[in-house]
Amino acid sequence: MGRIKTSENFSRKNIILNKAAALFKEKGYQAASMRDLAEIVGVEAASLYNHIKSKNDLLNEICFKVANKYNQKLSNIETENSTCLSKIESLLRFHIQEMVENFEEVFVSDREWKHLIEPYLTNFQTQRKTYRKRFAAMIDAGIKNKEIKKIDSTTAVLIMLHAISGIESWHRSKQKISGKALEESMITILVGGLKK
Amino acid sequence: MGRIKTSENFSRKNIILNKAAALFKEKGYQAASMRDLAEIVGVEAASLYNHIKSKNDLLNEICFKVANKYNQKLSNIETENSTCLSKIESLLRFHIQEMVENFEEVFVSDREWKHLIEPYLTNFQTQRKTYRKRFAAMIDAGIKNKEIKKIDSTTAVLIMLHAISGIESWHRSKQKISGKALEESMITILVGGLKK
Repeated sequence: MGRIKTSENFSRKNIILNKAAALFKEKGYQAASMRDLAEIVGVEAASLYNHIKSKNDLLNEICFKVANKYNQKLSNIETENSTCLSKIESLLRFHIQEMVENFEEVFVSDREWKHLIEPYLTNFQTQRKTYRKRFAAMIDAGIKNKEIKKIDSTTAVLIMLHAISGIESWHRSKQKISGKALEESMITILVGGLKK
Repeated sequence: MGRIKTSENFSRKNIILNKAAALFKEKGYQAASMRDLAEIVGVEAASLYNHIKSKNDLLNEICFKVANKYNQKLSNIETENSTCLSKIESLLRFHIQEMVENFEEVFVSDREWKHLIEPYLTNFQTQRKTYRKRFAAMIDAGIKNKEIKKIDSTTAVLIMLHAISGIESWHRSKQKISGKALEESMITILVGGLKK
């Protein structure tokens, strides 16, 4: 009985988190209210507080959940026994797929993290910087072993991440091409652009 | 005397437009007030109205000024007698240089145009779509004549424009590399990524 209740709470909470991500993406974190969220979830605003402490708590959970996923993937890729270019390709494909498939939470963690409250704000910002440095280090390793053209690795990371966050316009458009075709065109251009 | 006054008005208005672009970029169009602008320009709020009708009028002028510059450049490049790839390279270099050198007005016209009022809103949006289509057509021409890899040209435009709008983070960062070095790395990756 206790176990069933816990699992019900877990899935209820997951629903709330998903709806919150959709709401924050749509209205922006600041403009979104707990009342809006209650309406979308289909419960009384008061009952949301059985599952979460505050609107800011929701933002924390979304941002740190996404951060965990990205950090884990990057660590896995770093330890792969393959070329730098193939590691970078794996990482880019992961980023593209996340933007295509888990758009709302990825979008919110990428654009709305500035509304996190300390100590989470500084912590999250540091994680972002570290992530980009590890990505740049992968590119530098590829330049060093002559797989990749001699370019500024920080600029390369900037190009890759911004190009991928542009998938936002694909979501807003009529999506004339599939997510998979989008991924292939992006990889062709971005990995092709790095390759020596 | 009359002529001097006109040229004084012209330069005063230009100063106001530049300061408005900086203000809209910093605070966002909606949050920025004419009072803020007056303070930055160093005049009474009332005297701004000798030069412009309204806050929205300023946004119009910024957006359409930028649109003119980009449309003109694209038309010039389209008629150049050169390869598709070299036309695309010229266009990308222009975009990068504008983002580096005229960051504030380019940023505002790219992010805040949604606050334009009809008929300007629809007009501006149509111009954006047309511009992207002409850019995509340049890429398609290059695919057809085998200069460029077989990719989805709409995705390629999305990648290029978003990568370049990422120069925003370069402005926010400590700018460890020069605008020129940034341009060269971007061109290496983006043009290199298209090239067959």
